[in-house]
Amino acid sequence: MSDYLALDTGTLPERLSGIEAVASRVGPDPATWSVKEVGDGNLNLVFIVEGPSGTVIVKQALPYVRLVGDSWPLPLTRAFFEYHALTRQAARDPGRVPEVFHFDEDQALIVMEYLSPHAILRGRLIAGQKTEGLGEALGRFCARTAFRGSDLSMKTPEKKADTALFLGNVELCDITESLVFTDPYFQAEMNNHNPHLDALVTELRGEVALKTEAQHMLAKFANNAETLCHGDLHTGSVMCTDAETRVIDPEFGFYGPMGFDIGMLIANFLMAYLSQPAHRGDELDAYQEWILSVVDETWTSFASEFSTLWEAERTGILYPATLFEDQNHSASGALSDKLRDIWADALGFCGIEQHRRTLSLAHNADFESIEDAETRGKLEARNLRLGAYLLMNRTTIADTSELLDIARSFNRKDAP
Amino acid sequence: MSDYLALDTGTLPERLSGIEAVASRVGPDPATWSVKEVGDGNLNLVFIVEGPSGTVIVKQALPYVRLVGDSWPLPLTRAFFEYHALTRQAARDPGRVPEVFHFDEDQALIVMEYLSPHAILRGRLIAGQKTEGLGEALGRFCARTAFRGSDLSMKTPEKKADTALFLGNVELCDITESLVFTDPYFQAEMNNHNPHLDALVTELRGEVALKTEAQHMLAKFANNAETLCHGDLHTGSVMCTDAETRVIDPEFGFYGPMGFDIGMLIANFLMAYLSQPAHRGDELDAYQEWILSVVDETWTSFASEFSTLWEAERTGILYPATLFEDQNHSASGALSDKLRDIWADALGFCGIEQHRRTLSLAHNADFESIEDAETRGKLEARNLRLGAYLLMNRTTIADTSELLDIARSFNRKDAP
Repeated sequence: MSDYLALDTGTLPERLSGIEAVASRVGPDPATWSVKEVGDGNLNLVFIVEGPSGTVIVKQALPYVRLVGDSWPLPLTRAFFEYHALTRQAARDPGRVPEVFHFDEDQALIVMEYLSPHAILRGRLIAGQKTEGLGEALGRFCARTAFRGSDLSMKTPEKKADTALFLGNVELCDITESLVFTDPYFQAEMNNHNPHLDALVTELRGEVALKTEAQHMLAKFANNAETLCHGDLHTGSVMCTDAETRVIDPEFGFYGPMGFDIGMLIANFLMAYLSQPAHRGDELDAYQEWILSVVDETWTSFASEFSTLWEAERTGILYPATLFEDQNHSASGALSDKLRDIWADALGFCGIEQHRRTLSLAHNADFESIEDAETRGKLEARNLRLGAYLLMNRTTIADTSELLDIARSFNRKDAP
Repeated sequence: MSDYLALDTGTLPERLSGIEAVASRVGPDPATWSVKEVGDGNLNLVFIVEGPSGTVIVKQALPYVRLVGDSWPLPLTRAFFEYHALTRQAARDPGRVPEVFHFDEDQALIVMEYLSPHAILRGRLIAGQKTEGLGEALGRFCARTAFRGSDLSMKTPEKKADTALFLGNVELCDITESLVFTDPYFQAEMNNHNPHLDALVTELRGEVALKTEAQHMLAKFANNAETLCHGDLHTGSVMCTDAETRVIDPEFGFYGPMGFDIGMLIANFLMAYLSQPAHRGDELDAYQEWILSVVDETWTSFASEFSTLWEAERTGILYPATLFEDQNHSASGALSDKLRDIWADALGFCGIEQHRRTLSLAHNADFESIEDAETRGKLEARNLRLGAYLLMNRTTIADTSELLDIARSFNRKDAP
């Protein structure tokens, strides 16, 4: 990687000139390209490159965390893992992730499809916008990537080799292991939280059973390599129009529990839900209920697609058809068990994601954009309490209907 | 591996001549060595090389399964995984595995410590011999390798890299995935069982819940990379004298569930126990109870050593001391949860190992050495029923005391 060079709008055209996959999409003459830097994420450089033939996105990893600076180095290899995750996701759920046009491993650079007029889902939720088929698309994406990246579907030598490949994504997993699963639960150096939460934070950090359950979930994250997870599937990793949903940014990709992505996603919908009282006026109730309907739709779509694939594509070593057909048995009991376990895991990961977005380093705009700290604190407190409830009761919450009722009860004006 | 050549007693001295680590232990002049082939296992060549200075074992992998012949190819890399498992086990539980003197990756050959007068534990159990401290040593070995090979102890980059390395042991894992977890539960091609068991086998293969639970355990085996397991820890992989216990043959090494090794071990003790009525006369009851005491000792030793390491060596990412000390909390609740989960997993793997040794390709001498098929069938039936009971009830069997009572009830003369 000795010739790696972080690009800027001036050096980008030369770097990509002569690459047919780029030229054919943007235009053959780099002098005619217009380049804009638009990266507002935590980690990388992102450019929009527009030319006479079209527009592409260029995403380049920096050797450090953009949010923090070069005091926090982060390896360029994350572009390699993002590229490999994108190609696998494209194969497993065609059309849902941006098409990759070009990958340069040394430059840690991916040229990919420009999504327009899509906007980041988180901002759309804060603004009260709806997307048709949102939950259906995301649930199906989670189901297809979960199923098709697992020993339910893949040949075991390929599954093991791919798991080994992604075990190289050490530093990005380390971020999740620390910032998501551990830091929220003690006074870690990089933490920050709203001072109005001090008493509640002390209370939560005093609950040894809560910390124990969070660590049980970390053990699953770190060890249970069921499938290739997106690894960072919050509402900032989803781009939408009113009618279309796309998934981006899988650089945290790793083989982990099937409930991880969908749990993180549900957490981010619940945080959008709980923060709405600070963003909406008249339409509050209706829009909050729409968000809850997306949660319901996400899980329903997941369970439905997973069940379809279970019947149609179970070609791996797990629950092989021969074993059950031998006696004209169905493996539907095993499917129910599996969905039950994924659901419980998802609720556990959900609760932890709710905590870390309020207590650890990286907060989310749903709450952060609420200027009044006291109002924000009141809503964040509901979020912390709901997260704790879901983590602690994950194996006994029967279905989304029960989950939504629980969410509503934590959203009541007279909630503690 | 182009220059690989399977050795015989004639070619071995030349192959090892000039290797200092061998010469210093056997003697400098290969002409003075006496070489005997002694391999009676399923997979490899094993030689005893004796010289004026001492004796060593030479183990060489064959490119096929020795038991079956060259119609079943098996990669030479298993020697590589055995070597790496042996060095890790030696570091994690010093003195318990044979010392490695020399490893030749191209020749798939390991020169190691000659254990004498040790004999294979399975034969000793069939013969009614006792070993002092047997359960204590094996439980401690399982605890130390489980704990020290996990995210409880290792730095996560090393843990992930080592997990990735062992994910290359595809073919040997495939043997376990097929022959242990799946074949017993349907009419697989390589199966064989005692015709006296036909009715019971049909009954068991008709239990869809049983097959489902076996597959749930396979999912854990294939995905949940908690620690480096021995992978084949039956009583044929243990060598003993009356006072000493050593563990050999970890070529099936892989990162998997902490309960796998100890569960397989308990299964093999229970099979020794159930087969005793065909081997013992007057001393039957006393010797059977001694075997059960070894089961008790094995788990007690495991739990005790694991708990000691939990307090003294928890240096990994899981359940970090800082998280609990922050509030003067203890992580002892988490330890109890962990031991409970390992115990339940162990009982599940135990039941499956009992089944596969009666129904799949590789049976064990405890039963196979019983000449009368009807007598053998009666004892094997107890074993199948006990295995099913343990697999189905693994989460509700409280402790070894309850396990031993269950084993005794399946051993009754009037048992079905």
